[in-house]
Parts: sequence; structure tokens; C-alpha cells
Amino acid sequence: MTDAMKSRICYAVDTAFDQQVSFLAALTAFRSTRGNEQAAQDFMAEALVARGYEVDRWQIDLDEIRHLPGFSPVAEPYDDAVNVVGTHRAKAGGGRSLILNGHIDVVPAGPEEMWDSPPFEPRVADGWLYGRGAGDMKAGLVSNLFALDALRACGLAPCGDIHVQSVVEEECTGNGALACLARGYRADAALIPEPFSEHLVTAQLGVIWFQVHLKGLPTHVAYAGSGSNAIEAAIPLIDALHRMEARWNAAANRTADYAHMDHALNLNVGRIAGGDWTSSVPAWCVFDVRMAIFPGQSLDAAQAEIGQVIRDAASEVPFLREARPEIVWHGFLAEGYALSQDSSARATEAIGALEAAHRGVTGAGLTREAITATTDARFFGLYADTPALVYGPRAEAIHGFNERVELDSMRRITKSTALFIADWCGTEEI
Amino acid sequence: MTDAMKSRICYAVDTAFDQQVSFLAALTAFRSTRGNEQAAQDFMAEALVARGYEVDRWQIDLDEIRHLPGFSPVAEPYDDAVNVVGTHRAKAGGGRSLILNGHIDVVPAGPEEMWDSPPFEPRVADGWLYGRGAGDMKAGLVSNLFALDALRACGLAPCGDIHVQSVVEEECTGNGALACLARGYRADAALIPEPFSEHLVTAQLGVIWFQVHLKGLPTHVAYAGSGSNAIEAAIPLIDALHRMEARWNAAANRTADYAHMDHALNLNVGRIAGGDWTSSVPAWCVFDVRMAIFPGQSLDAAQAEIGQVIRDAASEVPFLREARPEIVWHGFLAEGYALSQDSSARATEAIGALEAAHRGVTGAGLTREAITATTDARFFGLYADTPALVYGPRAEAIHGFNERVELDSMRRITKSTALFIADWCGTEEI
Repeated sequence: MTDAMKSRICYAVDTAFDQQVSFLAALTAFRSTRGNEQAAQDFMAEALVARGYEVDRWQIDLDEIRHLPGFSPVAEPYDDAVNVVGTHRAKAGGGRSLILNGHIDVVPAGPEEMWDSPPFEPRVADGWLYGRGAGDMKAGLVSNLFALDALRACGLAPCGDIHVQSVVEEECTGNGALACLARGYRADAALIPEPFSEHLVTAQLGVIWFQVHLKGLPTHVAYAGSGSNAIEAAIPLIDALHRMEARWNAAANRTADYAHMDHALNLNVGRIAGGDWTSSVPAWCVFDVRMAIFPGQSLDAAQAEIGQVIRDAASEVPFLREARPEIVWHGFLAEGYALSQDSSARATEAIGALEAAHRGVTGAGLTREAITATTDARFFGLYADTPALVYGPRAEAIHGFNERVELDSMRRITKSTALFIADWCGTEEI
Repeated sequence: MTDAMKSRICYAVDTAFDQQVSFLAALTAFRSTRGNEQAAQDFMAEALVARGYEVDRWQIDLDEIRHLPGFSPVAEPYDDAVNVVGTHRAKAGGGRSLILNGHIDVVPAGPEEMWDSPPFEPRVADGWLYGRGAGDMKAGLVSNLFALDALRACGLAPCGDIHVQSVVEEECTGNGALACLARGYRADAALIPEPFSEHLVTAQLGVIWFQVHLKGLPTHVAYAGSGSNAIEAAIPLIDALHRMEARWNAAANRTADYAHMDHALNLNVGRIAGGDWTSSVPAWCVFDVRMAIFPGQSLDAAQAEIGQVIRDAASEVPFLREARPEIVWHGFLAEGYALSQDSSARATEAIGALEAAHRGVTGAGLTREAITATTDARFFGLYADTPALVYGPRAEAIHGFNERVELDSMRRITKSTALFIADWCGTEEI
């Protein structure tokens, strides 16, 4: 690709950038939390149709994925779980194919009064677009779409097939991406513009979700003895889980990508609910835990150890002697994944192409990062032999209040994505 | 009163007892939790009207009570807070007057699957009637009504005015009873058949309710450092409150009625809620606390100390340094009350009359008990110079699962209530 062509592509991104920001604002305005993604998916499907892509919009069928590796148990019904994939078919063909993946689901906004402005009324200020999901990861979804638009504006189309995926459930199971695999979508590489500051993600952790359900015999507080309270019974269990977290983070357990991190694996008590009445000794308490594991760490062994830790701790709690805690695996059972361990030619070439594109836009080398979260990349990398490049814009306060994405960063990512596509797939004239 | 008359009254209770149990079952079937008392109050009002009492049914007006001693702050609107009082006016008169008080509100049932049978589908088994509120205290309300019925069946009416009160809010503020005072209801004594095993309550604790609201800046768990979690920030605050609980229970602080109890004052974390998403570090957590105080212990000083304990503990929690916890007084600000300290002639006579009635029915002396809860008795005793006798049937698992009241105990209480009324007020022929 000539420097002139690179400039033309980047110029095309600049030309359409106001429109791209408007599109991102419109997409961020959808309150597409889990179970509420349909309207946002309709919006994505319309945008894909308008651009002339073949659009596949389907409801996920649990029976088609529950037996597959990487499947995570589901707490909610899937009636509203709809994936959208737009496909560009190369005319002449001969180039490499690519999946451009992103997720439409966003995490809950939390108490809205803690936001400076309403989370689903996006606003631009000081070069950032604010709103729940703006960074994680609607900016990435939009970048995928507008990178392809930029090529088209230059009279170019990718020489390989492209699947633009807008999936659900990234934030709790990954079953949206898994359903795309089950439906047969494959390519020579995948790009996922998750918001990691324009770094290339070379490793990601696995994530396990579980709920601990405690229950017992309540009573009027007038008769409460010590140790009879379901809410307080949770405390020593949480302590024990933190001791497990410390063991798992020990230097001896770390993989190479995480050797320099003292505390890559974070245990999070993310939600708690218990009791019904201030003057009734609470008979029940449920708390939700997220725990991470290293790439290569056995999911089965991790689950078994969690179970043992809870059982052992519960045996010391008087309230729990009669009714042992129940563990419910209500989401992620996700293995870790390290692109850094993929020594295939395709991986090397894909990373090389992305590095060149990044340098072409930023003038700088591509920073590698091992992240302390998971992404849908694991499905491509672990279960479809497809190198998955996670590379997206800079965002702040994802999962927090005043989540925001830096617009100049989204602009750069869109440009380097366009250059990457042109390089990886090759181009043909429209 | 002749023994023959006593026997006739008791026989009248026995005769109507099946009907009384049916009435209790019907009343227990109402799901009269806070805010949902209206249908049950309609049922009570109809029963009072059917018996020919003057019925006063009114919505509590906060403006009429908020300035009164004993008022507790209210978390919910009062649109549904309706009191019912039925009044019997003595014909000839000359006897002492009496308030027969009970509360219609019940505490939440909790997870209904933890009940052996549905909490609002009352059932009788082995001499007990099961259902939420059956013991606390619909059996008492029903006993009041049927004790008067028994006198009537004997051709008798009390010689003094009787106010049969069915009040709301006993379980969270006591403002229902306070509103009766504000409306002008007064008598020479009050009887409240709360379920304390046919004992006479000689002292009750004060109760304080508060919520602790914690909030801060959440983030994706991938970036969670220690001390950033609102749910876990609650733990050291709860610990500090338990240390305060231990101090307050120290022998030096106990009043005479509680000198023998190591732990009369129970602190209860009755409810907790926090966080929105398993993989988001929780930004908020709210927990509800009930704490008791001794009769005579200053409510103001207790509130001040609670505030100080929370502030001091919060200053040690990194998460809370930026955003101090907020304390919300969302219910009971109730002083303790000790009938044992009432040396008035009226109190002595009322207790004597109840003791005689109890012995007449059971053949045994009246057991005195200092209870570790509060009741509406404090309003009569502290703010209306009226001795308040708390004396009701045996119940189990109040505020728990499978709450139940012993029917033979309710029968005895109804009989001794009828005998007490006849003695205290005197009787005249209908």
C-alpha cells in the first residue's frame, strides 16, 4: 500500500468523523444492558443493511452452544439475546478474511445520581464522549463500521470476506461470540477493538463468576444470639476467598505474561443482597463474586478450590452448620488466553500487519499489554484456531460513573483498523 | 365478680372459639405488611361495625404527629397508613376506661420457599395456627375483639369506655399508636396482647433504626485495588458497631430490669444491598441496623454515639476517605419503657386486676418479664401517663419462617382479657 493510499484512507476517516461521533452518540443512547440489547442491535443491523452488507440477525439458541467448549452457564432467559453479523463478500477474492468483532451489551449504570450527567444521554466534552458503554465498547463497534466506510470512500473493498459482528453477552458469559462460532463464522484473524488505550492485548485472564447463597433460620432480633445472622455469616467466607486470591496470585503461579504483576487476579464481591426487615435477623444473603485465573490455569481445578474454600470457611460459622452455602455458577466460566503464546505464521503476520497500521497512524510502535480482564478474544484464539487481536481506543471509568472514550483515540483506532484491513485482506476496486 | 360469672365468661369464650380461630385465619390471610394494611383494616373496621361499636377510621397525618414526643422518622409515604379504632361507650358508666390495642402490620415473610406452607395461607396443625403475623400480633387483635364478645354473650357490657385500636406501623415506628394519642384517645389503662407467652411485660427496650449509606468511585474489577469496594467497606463499620453493642451491654449500664441479662441489647444488621454487576467494583452499599437501648438511656446520646462510631470506623477505610458514610434514621427512634417503674395507684391496680384474671384462668401466678424488644406500650406509659399492660399469647418464630401462635394460649388470653375487662371497668347489663 502506498503512502498516498494510506493518507487517502486516513483522510476519509477524518472526513466522516463528525458523522462517526454522531453515530456513536446515537448507539450509546441505547440502554443496552443485558436483556435489553434488541433496539441497539436493530440499529446496528440497519446500519449494516444500509451499507449493503448481508445481514444475519438471530436469536441465540442455548441448545446449539451449551455443549461447546467455552460455554458459560446462563442465569437469565435468552429470549432477548440476539446477535447481528454483517458480511462483506469479496468480489474477486483471494485476500485473507477477517472478523471485526464487538459487543453491544453494556454493564448497568449503577445509581444514576452518581453520574455527572445521565449515563444514557451521551455528551461530548473536552474531546471525550461520555456515556455508559461509550468506551466498553460501542466506540469499538462504531470504529469497525467506519473503518470499512473509509475504504469504500476511497473506492476500495477488502479482497477477503469480512464479518462485522455485534454480539451480546460479552459482559457476563461470552456466549454471544460463542454463538457466532457455532453458526459457522470463521476467518483468518479477528480484531476486537476493546478499550485498552491503543495497546495490543497479548494476554488476558480467565474469569469465573459465582454466587454464594446463604440461608438459615431467622428470628426476631430480640432473640438473636451471636452467629445467627446470614449477612454477617458472609463475612468470614469473603475473608477466606481473599486468602485464596492471595495464594493464586503468588509469584510461583504466575504465567510469563503476568510475572511482573503482584496482583493480576482480582477477586471482586460485586453485589450483595440479604434480609428483608431491619428488625428481623436476616435468614438469607446472596453475594456475587468475580475471580480471575491465569491463562493455562485449570478452570475445573479453580472451581473445585472455590467450592472447598467456601465449605471449609462455612464449617467455622455457626449459622451455616445447619444449612451449607450453595454455590451457583451464574456467568463466566472463561479460560485465559494469550496471543503471545500463538507462534503460528498467521498470528505473526496479523500482529505485524496491525503493528504497521498502528505505526502508520501514530508514528510509534505498538505497545503490548497483558490485561487483567477477559474479552471475547478467547473464543477465536482457544476454540477456533484464529489469532484474535484486541486493540481499541482509550477509555476511562469503564464499569464506573462518567464512563468516557477519547474521541481522538477512536479516530486513530479507526484509521489503523482501516489500514490493517487494507493490508491484511488486500483491496479491490468497488 | 362471682366465680359463677367468671365461669360463664370463660364458657362464652369457649363457645365462640372455633369462630375466633376462623376469624384469626381470615385476618392472617391479609398480607398486611407495611403499606399494605388497608384491606386488613377494612376487615377489622367491618368487624367492629358489625358489633355496634363507633368506628373511627382515618389516615395518619404526619403534620399532626411529627412534633410529638415519641415520633419516629418515616421512610415511606403515609398514603396507606390507616388506623382503626372502635369505641364502646358505657351506658351508665362510672367504671374505669380501657384501651385494647393491637397492631395490624406484619413484617415481611422473607423468601416464601423457606416456609413449610405459604405465609399468607394460614393453617392449623397440632394446636397452632401458622402464618405471618398470626402471633405478632393478629391473635392479640382477635383476642381483644372476642373477649368483648364473650362479655356480650353473657349479657354484659363494660361500665367504662373501651377503645379497641387496630394500628399500623408498630413494626417500624410506632407512629400508628402515636396518632391515636394525637387524636385524643385516652383511658385509665391500656392492654396490648403482644405474644409474650402469657407473661406480663414489666420493661421493654428502646429501639433505634438506621441505615448506613456507603458510596464511592467504582471501576472495572480489572483495575480494582484493595479497599475500593463499597460492600467490603461495610465490614469494619459493622465490626465497630458490634464493639459499641458490647460497651452498651456492660453490666454498669444495665437498668434493674435487665441486670441479669448479659446481652439484652442486640444489634442487628437486618438488610444489606450493594453493587449492580458481578464484574463491577461496587460503588455503593446500604445496610440497615437495629440497635436497642435500655429504658432511661438517652436516645439523643445513643444517636450521637452511633454517628461517632461510624465516623471513626470510616476514617480507617480507604474507600470511605473521599466520601463519608451517610446515616439515615429511617424508622424507630423509640425510648425504653418500664411498667415496673410506674408506682402509681392506677398501675398497681391494673396489674392487680390482670394478675387476678390470669390466676382465674390459669390457676397460676402472673410471670413478669423484661423483654428485649419494644412495643407500642411506650406511648401510653411515657407520653400519656397511662399504665400499659403487655400480655398476650404464646407464639413462636415471630419475624421468622413458620410463625405460629398456640391456639390454647390465645384461648386463655382471651378469657383472662375478658375477666380483666369485667374487673377493671366493671360491667352493666346490656
